[in-house]
Formats: sequence, structure tokens, C-alpha cells
Amino acid sequence: MDEGIGQVETQFFTFGSEGAPFVFDSGAALPEVTLAYEIYGELNEARDNAILLFHALTGSHHAAGYNPSVPGTGGRWTEEMHVGWWDSFIGPGRSLNTDKFAVVCANWVGHCYGSTGPASIDPETGGPYGPSFPRVSVGDTVRAHFRLLDHLGVKRLHAVVGGSVGGMMCLEAATRYPDRVRFVVPIAAGLRATALQVIHDFEQISAIYNDPNFNGGKYYDGPSPDEGLALARIIGHKTFVSLDQMKERARDEVAPGSSEVVRLPLESYMWHQGQEFVKRFDANAYLRTMWAWQDFDLSAEAERCGVELPDLLCRGSDCHEYLVFSIDSDVCYYRCEQEELVEELKKAGIRFEWITVHSEKGHDAFLLEPRLFEPHLRFHLESMWSPSLK
Amino acid sequence: MDEGIGQVETQFFTFGSEGAPFVFDSGAALPEVTLAYEIYGELNEARDNAILLFHALTGSHHAAGYNPSVPGTGGRWTEEMHVGWWDSFIGPGRSLNTDKFAVVCANWVGHCYGSTGPASIDPETGGPYGPSFPRVSVGDTVRAHFRLLDHLGVKRLHAVVGGSVGGMMCLEAATRYPDRVRFVVPIAAGLRATALQVIHDFEQISAIYNDPNFNGGKYYDGPSPDEGLALARIIGHKTFVSLDQMKERARDEVAPGSSEVVRLPLESYMWHQGQEFVKRFDANAYLRTMWAWQDFDLSAEAERCGVELPDLLCRGSDCHEYLVFSIDSDVCYYRCEQEELVEELKKAGIRFEWITVHSEKGHDAFLLEPRLFEPHLRFHLESMWSPSLK
Repeated sequence: MDEGIGQVETQFFTFGSEGAPFVFDSGAALPEVTLAYEIYGELNEARDNAILLFHALTGSHHAAGYNPSVPGTGGRWTEEMHVGWWDSFIGPGRSLNTDKFAVVCANWVGHCYGSTGPASIDPETGGPYGPSFPRVSVGDTVRAHFRLLDHLGVKRLHAVVGGSVGGMMCLEAATRYPDRVRFVVPIAAGLRATALQVIHDFEQISAIYNDPNFNGGKYYDGPSPDEGLALARIIGHKTFVSLDQMKERARDEVAPGSSEVVRLPLESYMWHQGQEFVKRFDANAYLRTMWAWQDFDLSAEAERCGVELPDLLCRGSDCHEYLVFSIDSDVCYYRCEQEELVEELKKAGIRFEWITVHSEKGHDAFLLEPRLFEPHLRFHLESMWSPSLK
Repeated sequence: MDEGIGQVETQFFTFGSEGAPFVFDSGAALPEVTLAYEIYGELNEARDNAILLFHALTGSHHAAGYNPSVPGTGGRWTEEMHVGWWDSFIGPGRSLNTDKFAVVCANWVGHCYGSTGPASIDPETGGPYGPSFPRVSVGDTVRAHFRLLDHLGVKRLHAVVGGSVGGMMCLEAATRYPDRVRFVVPIAAGLRATALQVIHDFEQISAIYNDPNFNGGKYYDGPSPDEGLALARIIGHKTFVSLDQMKERARDEVAPGSSEVVRLPLESYMWHQGQEFVKRFDANAYLRTMWAWQDFDLSAEAERCGVELPDLLCRGSDCHEYLVFSIDSDVCYYRCEQEELVEELKKAGIRFEWITVHSEKGHDAFLLEPRLFEPHLRFHLESMWSPSLK
């Protein structure tokens, strides 16, 4: 019945020039930035049917369909990347209905799946940027993705959608481009990095720096800091899934080929998560995802703008509408974090729905259980849908 | 008014011989084991007024009074160790009332504060044991401590008391020596290592193994694996304290002298926790505390004994009485873990009180807030007190 997206190809968009470089929030600049992106569905003539989807920490721009190769990703485009990470959410008649909408998803700046990042070639040196690649904020990636929207002729989005740090990007997009976003759908996200997130991220950063192969980020000529990156993944992974799930998945034995450090089945399971991950990710890019997460703070942004947070949330000529999702078993972004967001939306007088879904899968439920999100996503995105050219 | 314990000196007890070695649960054996211990208060003539106190993961046998030096601890007996870790709980008229009781506290086996451990000299080689030192179970330490009680002529304890993994040792003592323990006081502990604890411990173990200075545990001739041990401490520390406390303690700036990896005040705070810790602890000993914790499982022990858990809990000629403490903000040993213990006590028909204290300090409240525990500790320990020679 439902055919899905089928095979897709990644597209690339390069912007900037020597005279008009892309300036990061940190002040650093790159003359040119390339974005890897995909589009599912067709832009209508008015170009007002686009949904901008943000991927999460280690996701990619390949959100739907099948894509067996992406140029510029080295060996990192492993088999687990080939099917889009939200494939069952996107397609004709699906939650993000490509019969009506054009879903645009682009890789983060500073990442490692085709957008310019630390492993990309620096035209000035002919070698990888490595540690000289700037820190990238959530805002930097959002600004870059809006450059892509300019290029596509999309002036106003029907919606921004994203989970986890991708949900933070939704909030960033809505507050930075108040007149270009209609509908805001942050899933399992929050207004700012919490103390626990900052600490978890710091542990992961430290694990990478502690790896002697990291060498301050200059490792592309030699062995990669795989042990550090694998430990970082383990530290992060446990917050994405539910402990019960992990116990279940951990078989009763230590898998053969495990490191000497592994004694217990649960350790073996976690260790293999780390080993799988290092095949598909770059440590320098990982550091930039951590820093982006740690530094996200919408209250601080409001302060910099000299306004209160509710005013930042409602700056456009007409306010957005929000669909906020919580996952009850989420221990990465606890439900109280979405509650805090909702409190601010209330103060701002912004229309919202706040849905808490029950899952036993924890934070990653937003990737794994479409049925929990689909009815509300569909209802809200489509009921609000009044294309200009109808 | 209340004078406390004053200056104390560590005592040492050595047992075992070539012909009768100490055999660890793992099957490994050492001909001789030394325990560092202290006693506060006097044993009465019947020697039935002793309370055995177990320290937690990185604590020591020095629980009360002032002790500026402990032989055999290298440079690890730093200033923060000089005042006993439960000083305000122990003394004349205090919760553990030394006017009535003799409080015995000994360092764990395989630890680093005077009891035989990986940094101790192996008489066979003349160098430190290092990685050849056996894994030490919770049961091993408890058995060794009961050898000390034999030596002191204590046949039956008035009580066993301990927090965290020290609380697990209380359960172990009560089930391994059912007729030698009257009163059991586990604070913020549980029946088994949870999945989350196993994972946290594994992260810490990995952080140490990943440090190139660790060298498989052979580092006593060279630089210590300080970076790995510091990261391990950071990973553990966050579960011991409350996040709000940490945010408060983290000043508004990055402390000078922080590592290049540190950018944020909270990172700086955590990093310094790690740096302070490596001054006072040995990585090989730390690994053994992690393994002991991970492997503790009273249900598995019941299974090995061919009994149900409630029967294991009530094997003595007369059952113990329990005083179980929970801390509502504890994210290391969640309250549900004590609930599980209490459920088993009920099934076993064991008398118990279960007290949940409210604290904003998290797990470490059992070290920091005597007033929360004192009334119940005193009431139960003393009301149950009927010395044989009265």
C-alpha cells in the first residue's frame, strides 16, 4: 500500500565566498560552506509547503528512503545509514505527508555526512581542517540551513520538526527567523542544555581528548581516537535508550571478540555499541556536536537580545504554533524540560499542544515508534495546512 | 559539650599463612592479608557491644576523629582524609554512641588505605602486586572483616552499618553470618548492582583502561593513569551529588589552571573533582571497587545457595532487625532499590523500619547530613541495646 520514498540521492549546496564568508557565532569564518541535503516530496509553486527537518546528534540529512552512498563521507556511510532515520515517518500518506509537503533535511555544519566539517578538505592547506575547524553552534547550523532555504526559494516554512538537539534547532529556527516559520514541532527537547547534559557531554569530550590517538584533533594521517570515541558513545548511548531495553538486548553472554575490559553481558552490549559507532563517525565532528549542545541556552539568547524569553519566543508578526512532544521514559531530555518550554509558551501567549507519549524505549522512542507521534503530527500539520495556491 | 573522638591511630591486623591462605571468591589466594582498622569506644567484657561499620567506595577505615597519617598509604593520605568521614556520627552521645558501643571500621581488601591491595608489596616479587592482585568481591571484604572480629573476640555484633556499597556489605554480612549480626542498617543501598550502576562502573573501568599510562595495571614504576582515573571519578561523582548542588558549587567562571578541555564553569568544577581525587586514590584499587560493586547480587547468591532470597535474608537462629534508609534525591541508589529490599524483608517476615529522608544533596547526604539519620539511628541502636552484663 504505502510505498515510501524509494531510492534517493543526496544533493549539495555550497554558499559563501572569499568576500562574503560564513561567519560562525564564535567569530570564526569560512569562505565556503557546503551542505548535504535531501528533499522528499515536491515544492509547490508558491514554495510554501516545505517542512524543514533537523536531524539529531549523530544522524544525517538522509531521513527517508534508501541511499547507499553519499560522496565525501569516507567510509562512514555504513550500512546502518542506508535507510533514512525517519523513513517510516516520511512518505506519501505518512506523518510527514509527501503528497502535500516537501520535507527538506540537511546535515549539520561541522558534521561528517557531507556538509563541511573537520574531516573535509581545507582548500587553503589541501588537508583536512581537523582542529582548526570552528566550533559550530546550534544557531550556526540553523542559519546555514536557512541559506539553503533561500537557495530553494522557500521564504516561509510550513513547519520545522526535529527531535533531541534537532528539537533545540526547531526552537532556534523559530526564534531566529520568526517570520519564516509557521509551525514548530520540537520532540523530546528543551530550552537549554541542563546541568546533567553538560556533564554527560563533558565526560564524552574528555574521553576523546584522553585518547592518545586524538592528538589535539590531528589524527587524520594516523590511527583514529577510536577508544575515546567509543567510550564517548557508551556514555551518551545509555541516556538515549531505556535501561530495561538494554538489559533485554544484552544477551546472556559476553560476545566473542570483546575487549579485555569487558566481563559482563551488559558491558559487552555497550562495548559493541561503541565499536559500531566509531565506524561511522568522526571524533572531531563529535566534539562539535557536544559543544553545540552544551552551549544551547535560549534564555541566554533572550538576554543577549535584551528581551524576556517569552518575547523571544513570540517575535514574529504573527506567533507560531507549537506541537511539543515528551516521552515519559526519556532520561536524556526529561519531561520537566518540555514542561519548562510549555510554561514559557504560555507566558508568551503562543498556541500549543503538549503531548506526552508513553514508551518503554526512552529518548530514542522518537526514532523507533512512529505510531506514538503519527496521529498528532498528521492532525496538526495537515489541519493547519492551507496552501496559498489552493 | 560534645567532644568527639579526638586523635586516633590506625591499627593493623594480619592473618593467613602459606598453609592457610585467604581464598578470594574468584578462587585466587593470598598467603597473607593485612587489614587497616580503627576502633572507637571500648569493647565490653562480653564483647557484644561492637558495631561494624563499612565505608563506601573511596572511603577508608578512618571513620571518626583525627588521624594525620596512616602507614602504607604512600602520598594518598591527603589532608581531606585526616578527619574521619563519619566523624559527626560517631562519639560519646552521638548516633553511634561510643559511651555504649565499640565501633569497628576496617579498610576494604584490595583498597589503598592500609589494607592489602594492588599497590601493596607482593612479598614474592618485592614489588607492588599491580594487576596480579585478585578481583575482590563484596563477600571477600566482609569475610576478611569477620576475621578481624574473630581476632577481637567479637562473636556477635550489635549491628552492621554502612552506606552505598558499604550498605551492600551490611546485607552481605547479615546473610553470610546470620548468627553473628543482630541489627542491620543499610543506608542508600540495594540488593544488587542495577543496570545503570553496571554501566556507570563500566564507563569508569573503560576510562582507566583507555589511559595509556594504565598499561594493563603496571604503572607503579612510571606515570599514573591520572587522566583516566580523573574521568572515572567525574563519571561517578555526578551520581553521588545533586545536580542543583553542583550548579551552585560551580562558580561562574572556569578556575585558573584547568585543562584545555574545560570551557564551562560546571566542567571546571567537575574537572577539579577529578584532579583532587587522583591525588588520593590508586587506579588498580579503584578498578577493584568497581568490579566488587558490579558483581554484587544477593539474588544470585540465594540461587547459588539453592534458596529463595527471603530465606537467604532470614537464615539465622533468630532473624535480624533492619533499619533501612532511603534518600529521596539519590540518583545513585534510587529509592526503588530500597523498596525492593524492603519487599524481600516483608516476605522473609523480618522486622524492619524503612525511613526515607528528604535531602537536596543526593546520595552523599549520608555523609553530609547527620541530622537526617541521627534520631532513627540512635533510637533503634540504643533501644535495642541490652548488654549481656548489665
